[in-house]
Amino acid sequence: MTVSYESSRSPQPPESPVFPAGCASRTLLDHVTSKWGVLILIALADGQQRWSELRRRAEGISEKMLAQTLKTLERDGLVYREARPTIPPRVDYSLTPRGRELTDHLLPLFGWVQENAEEIIGQ
Amino acid sequence: MTVSYESSRSPQPPESPVFPAGCASRTLLDHVTSKWGVLILIALADGQQRWSELRRRAEGISEKMLAQTLKTLERDGLVYREARPTIPPRVDYSLTPRGRELTDHLLPLFGWVQENAEEIIGQ
Repeated sequence: MTVSYESSRSPQPPESPVFPAGCASRTLLDHVTSKWGVLILIALADGQQRWSELRRRAEGISEKMLAQTLKTLERDGLVYREARPTIPPRVDYSLTPRGRELTDHLLPLFGWVQENAEEIIGQ
Repeated sequence: MTVSYESSRSPQPPESPVFPAGCASRTLLDHVTSKWGVLILIALADGQQRWSELRRRAEGISEKMLAQTLKTLERDGLVYREARPTIPPRVDYSLTPRGRELTDHLLPLFGWVQENAEEIIGQ
């Protein structure tokens, strides 16, 4: 195969998929940029929160979607779930160090969206 | 209302929604973090591309979803569509300056996902 200037320009030639369908990166990208995943992660960037707090902060989320989103993020090692043996039982959610690393990359994007949304989308 | 230390800690008290449902920020966040939106934006960060190139790079996207995603990003002023009067007609897509500003925030997230996906998701 002849390597042209175009395809040698970057390690990923322009014709290649950004992420091949079904690869690990694509799955993780889907988890962390999902409609609710991104809101939960940004909410937790403010610190540890309870189930009911997260439900309020991700306004519009159903109980089912909150449970499913937290389970996915917990399985990915991004969110830590701590059940406290109190009466009534109390469950807190927080970011793991890896989750914090991720939100360090999500927050600038979030800030940009916040600054530009009104001009782009309007009221 | 008594303002506690907790709620005065940040301009956005922890009980408030991250983004209220239906607000402009929420709509824009949905557009730029949608399953296909994010892949198209990242593909275009490499430079101007044609329809067929974008279809290959966002592997698995249907014609319908590619059209819909590009239309949304174009309407938001993030992607520029240029139809060239050639035979056969040629249409190129590229990022606008605002789209470039956005991908400057998306690429670090993309890099983090790429670096961590195998360990988190596995093969």
